[in-house]
Amino acid sequence: MKQSLGAKALLFPTPVLMVGTYDQAGRPNLMNAAWGGICCSDPPCVTVSVRKSRHSYDGIVARKAFTVGIANEAKMTQADYVGIASGRDVDKFAVSGLTHVRSELVDAPYAEEFPIVLECRLLHTLEIGIHTQFIGEIVDVKADKNTLNEDGLPDILKILPLVYDTAHKGYHAVGPLIGKAFSAGKKLL
Amino acid sequence: MKQSLGAKALLFPTPVLMVGTYDQAGRPNLMNAAWGGICCSDPPCVTVSVRKSRHSYDGIVARKAFTVGIANEAKMTQADYVGIASGRDVDKFAVSGLTHVRSELVDAPYAEEFPIVLECRLLHTLEIGIHTQFIGEIVDVKADKNTLNEDGLPDILKILPLVYDTAHKGYHAVGPLIGKAFSAGKKLL
Repeated sequence: MKQSLGAKALLFPTPVLMVGTYDQAGRPNLMNAAWGGICCSDPPCVTVSVRKSRHSYDGIVARKAFTVGIANEAKMTQADYVGIASGRDVDKFAVSGLTHVRSELVDAPYAEEFPIVLECRLLHTLEIGIHTQFIGEIVDVKADKNTLNEDGLPDILKILPLVYDTAHKGYHAVGPLIGKAFSAGKKLL
Repeated sequence: MKQSLGAKALLFPTPVLMVGTYDQAGRPNLMNAAWGGICCSDPPCVTVSVRKSRHSYDGIVARKAFTVGIANEAKMTQADYVGIASGRDVDKFAVSGLTHVRSELVDAPYAEEFPIVLECRLLHTLEIGIHTQFIGEIVDVKADKNTLNEDGLPDILKILPLVYDTAHKGYHAVGPLIGKAFSAGKKLL
C-alpha cells in the first residue's frame, strides 16, 4: 500500500559530486552537488545542477568547463565542508587541505585527493527552475592507480564513494556486490 | 598518482531506475535506466536518458509522461530483467510477475512492487548524443508505508535501493550511515 508524499525531489541513491571550477578571479573552487548523473554514453556526458546564486555558477558559464570528482569515505569531512562554505568568502582548498590541480584538458581545477575525476567541457546549459542543469562532455576520466583492478577499470569497493540519501541527507557507505546487471534477470527470460 | 582512463561514462554511484510508460498500443512497459538523477529542487525534477531505439522512447514522447520506480534488493531479478527484455517482444509485467498500476496523475503506469515511485510529466526533451534526456517534473512521490519513518519520509535502509557500479556493471547494497550532510564538514568551518 503506497502513500502519497507530495511533489518532492526524492531519489535513492544519488552520488556526491565535487564540482571543480575557476571563479572569475581565477581562483579554484569546489562545490558539493547531489543533483547530477550520467546522461549519455556517446559522447560520454555528465550533468550537474547548480543554483544561479552559487559561486560556482559564474565560473562554469565563463570558462565553459568543470570537473566532477567522486567524493569518498576517506574525504567525507572535506566533501561536506565544500557544500557548506562559499568560495566567495574562503579558499575552500586551503581550509580543507585539498590540493588543487589544473586540468590539462579543460579550463577547470580538481582536487587531487578524490579518487576519480571527470574532466568536462560544457556542452549544454538548461534552465529548469531554481536549478540550472549543466551538461558536460567527459573528455577524460582520471583515477587513482590504487583504485584500479587488473582490467584497468576502477573498483567501486576501492573507491568507496559516498552514497547520498535525499530523504534524510545522510552519507552512506557502498555495501557488498549483490548481483550483476544484464545477468541477474536472465532467469526470467 | 592518477591514471588517464579516456573518455568514459563512469560515475559512482548511479541509481537503478524503473521507467514506466504506456506504448503506442496502450500496453504498460518498464525499462531499467542507470543514466538519470535529480536535476532541480523546485519544481522537483528527475532526468532519465533513453536511446531512440528503445521501446519506451516513443511512449514517453507520445504520452508526455513517465514514472520512475526505485529498484530495490528484493526485486533485483525483476529490475535486471526489464533491462534485458524488450516490451516490443514480451509483456515484461506479466513475465516478471510485477503488477502494473495506472497513475492517477500522469499518463503512465508503475510497478506496485517497487517501494518508491515518482510520477512525472514530461517537461523537457534534450538530444545529447546516442541518448535523449527526458526531464520529468515530479508531480507526486508515492512510497510503501512500511518504508516510512516517524517523520513521514522514506528510510533508505528500509527501501534498500540498488546502487549501480558503472565500471563493472554490478548492483550493490546500500551500506551503513557514515555521516550527515551539512554537518560532517562543520568541523572545518
